[in-house]
Amino acid sequence: MSEPPRGFPEDEFAARTARAQTLMARDGLAGLFLTTEPELRYFTGFQTLFWQSPTRPWFLFVPAAGKPIAIIPEIGAALMRTTWVDDIRTWSAPAPADDGISLLTDLLTPYACEGSAIGVMKGHETTLRMPLGDYERLLSGLPGLRITDATDLIRSLRMVKSDREIAKIAHICAIGSATFAKVPGIAHEGLPLDALFRAVRREALAQGADDVPYLVGGAGPGGYHDVISPPSPRPLAKGDILMLDTGATWDGYFCDFDRNWAVGRADDTARRAYDVLWRATEAGIDAARPSTTCRDLFHAMQSVIAEMDSQSGDVGRLGHGLGMQLTEWPSHAAFDRTVLTENMVLTLEPSLGYGDGRIMVHEENIVVRAEGAQLLTTRAAPELPVI
Amino acid sequence: MSEPPRGFPEDEFAARTARAQTLMARDGLAGLFLTTEPELRYFTGFQTLFWQSPTRPWFLFVPAAGKPIAIIPEIGAALMRTTWVDDIRTWSAPAPADDGISLLTDLLTPYACEGSAIGVMKGHETTLRMPLGDYERLLSGLPGLRITDATDLIRSLRMVKSDREIAKIAHICAIGSATFAKVPGIAHEGLPLDALFRAVRREALAQGADDVPYLVGGAGPGGYHDVISPPSPRPLAKGDILMLDTGATWDGYFCDFDRNWAVGRADDTARRAYDVLWRATEAGIDAARPSTTCRDLFHAMQSVIAEMDSQSGDVGRLGHGLGMQLTEWPSHAAFDRTVLTENMVLTLEPSLGYGDGRIMVHEENIVVRAEGAQLLTTRAAPELPVI
Repeated sequence: MSEPPRGFPEDEFAARTARAQTLMARDGLAGLFLTTEPELRYFTGFQTLFWQSPTRPWFLFVPAAGKPIAIIPEIGAALMRTTWVDDIRTWSAPAPADDGISLLTDLLTPYACEGSAIGVMKGHETTLRMPLGDYERLLSGLPGLRITDATDLIRSLRMVKSDREIAKIAHICAIGSATFAKVPGIAHEGLPLDALFRAVRREALAQGADDVPYLVGGAGPGGYHDVISPPSPRPLAKGDILMLDTGATWDGYFCDFDRNWAVGRADDTARRAYDVLWRATEAGIDAARPSTTCRDLFHAMQSVIAEMDSQSGDVGRLGHGLGMQLTEWPSHAAFDRTVLTENMVLTLEPSLGYGDGRIMVHEENIVVRAEGAQLLTTRAAPELPVI
Repeated sequence: MSEPPRGFPEDEFAARTARAQTLMARDGLAGLFLTTEPELRYFTGFQTLFWQSPTRPWFLFVPAAGKPIAIIPEIGAALMRTTWVDDIRTWSAPAPADDGISLLTDLLTPYACEGSAIGVMKGHETTLRMPLGDYERLLSGLPGLRITDATDLIRSLRMVKSDREIAKIAHICAIGSATFAKVPGIAHEGLPLDALFRAVRREALAQGADDVPYLVGGAGPGGYHDVISPPSPRPLAKGDILMLDTGATWDGYFCDFDRNWAVGRADDTARRAYDVLWRATEAGIDAARPSTTCRDLFHAMQSVIAEMDSQSGDVGRLGHGLGMQLTEWPSHAAFDRTVLTENMVLTLEPSLGYGDGRIMVHEENIVVRAEGAQLLTTRAAPELPVI
């Protein structure tokens, strides 16, 4: 599998920043104050697993003009210096008494004096990644500062991927597809589910994934009941329906899709559920084109699912955005009127409930092109595969 | 390797909750409002990788008496029903217009009417894992509610591990040690660093790790410069110093330690740095006993490091707590006066800078026992190993 280049050239970050600054001017924002991993990476390319340590906060300020300014722990300075960012302000963290707050106060005081508006992400699917007490203390020291929710601004940027981002997502989707293609040779009656998970993680790494941060699934006679649990040590048994759902990564970008198999034999209900979901996915693929809304996409899939179940197993939505995070805006749900545009990368994830609390989920990854959906995953077989 | 049992019996959660409620009574808190993965898992056993999706918030309320109450997306209800929690309130998420806020308002309104104090984690090493806008909206609808920072309360509970938790951490430390023991057979001159990372992840899974969420390291002639970067494709070369630092998991508990090797040959400076850090770790092991403070532990290690470097490479501390998170309170740093007590699980992580911006880091994992530190990792070799 030929790999796209790792990282991005500087013009990618310059273009992202320029687009943000255009929207900031539209919204009257003098800056963006960002604390979360995908946003720091989006504007700088700063990529590290060190975010898994909750100890240290990391900050980025995107001014109305010019490059972003990084306010980060000293331990990250060497890595940040390899990015396009020039203005890197550091402190020796952790320092509970002053974990970057003085540096932020120095930076933001001129904006507070002017009574400027600064954008902070406060909306759906966001969190503030710094201690809430520190945030409150920072703002109480900057009484003139106006805080505006910048979620929609960031969302509108990040939802549409560049060609370079799409190449990375396509690459990890290909690795995921190659991994799932090996599962019939790995899974067998008698293999404990947790051992299968371990083997699938190893296979994904062998296929070229950098990491497999997300691997969930289930197996049970005639179907599974839960799609978010860790694997049990129960051995696979004839008549089980097995599902594996993976979020593997390559260069910081995710795939997120699943596959279903029957072990030894499949009953008619499971075959029918699979067929309904396969056709619901097909309806989603047909509907996903520029100017369609996520709500339309939801209804296109839901109308097929309704042949068998009107509740969709109550997982809340039938797919979502995909990129630097396992799940991103938008949501294919009745509440989401986001209009699809070219170069959005999406999952189509129809699900349904059947029998005695069983659930089945299908998932493919696509990119929206001018002419319609382009599959990034190798399409699942149209009939429930038996292994 | 014989595995400890997965999960915990109900009495573990009952005891944790009772201890919390004793402290809540001391602090005058009518409840704890929790939003973060380790805290939900600590009080309920709810364990899922699904937290990697940022889309849905999850809430737990620990009342002054009785079991915790879960307010969670419907997609998690089946898994939460397998825990000891009885009162599970769900909504169909995502629902940006009301992502649990009505349910929380119903739950908290009686407390607001009484003017009660509710604990929220707002302090060091914490974040609020829900949209900030939703949090502000929730509180504005509950004007009588008093919010108190409960970080110290939760910290004092989570820092001291139960025997069952220690058994899980010891198990993953043994898996990590067995994995590092294989590295001299995997790494060789000419092997690209990113390929080595992939091989080490695969080896850790083969040794029994559930996952390897954290693997960082570095390699360079005479030493490495950075300890948080992703691996480069540069092949290992004779004269490199190689470091690998892993946070692997078993049943939701982490190890976090590293190993250093020289490729082909080691120069005297690197050998000396290794020796200083090995002895600094030894000084930490000797000092880590009940009634010692983290500050004492820091100074015990720092006084050895100072033979070669007074800055410790400015990584901010020389170790930390370990458990459900890769890094937890406390910090071995001059600012942290936490008194060590029996059954705290800690990393000892001395580091130093040398030469032209090179850094070296050592790390071991210990549990504090009445008689002193007990190693959970297989102690690193006293002299820099050459592979």
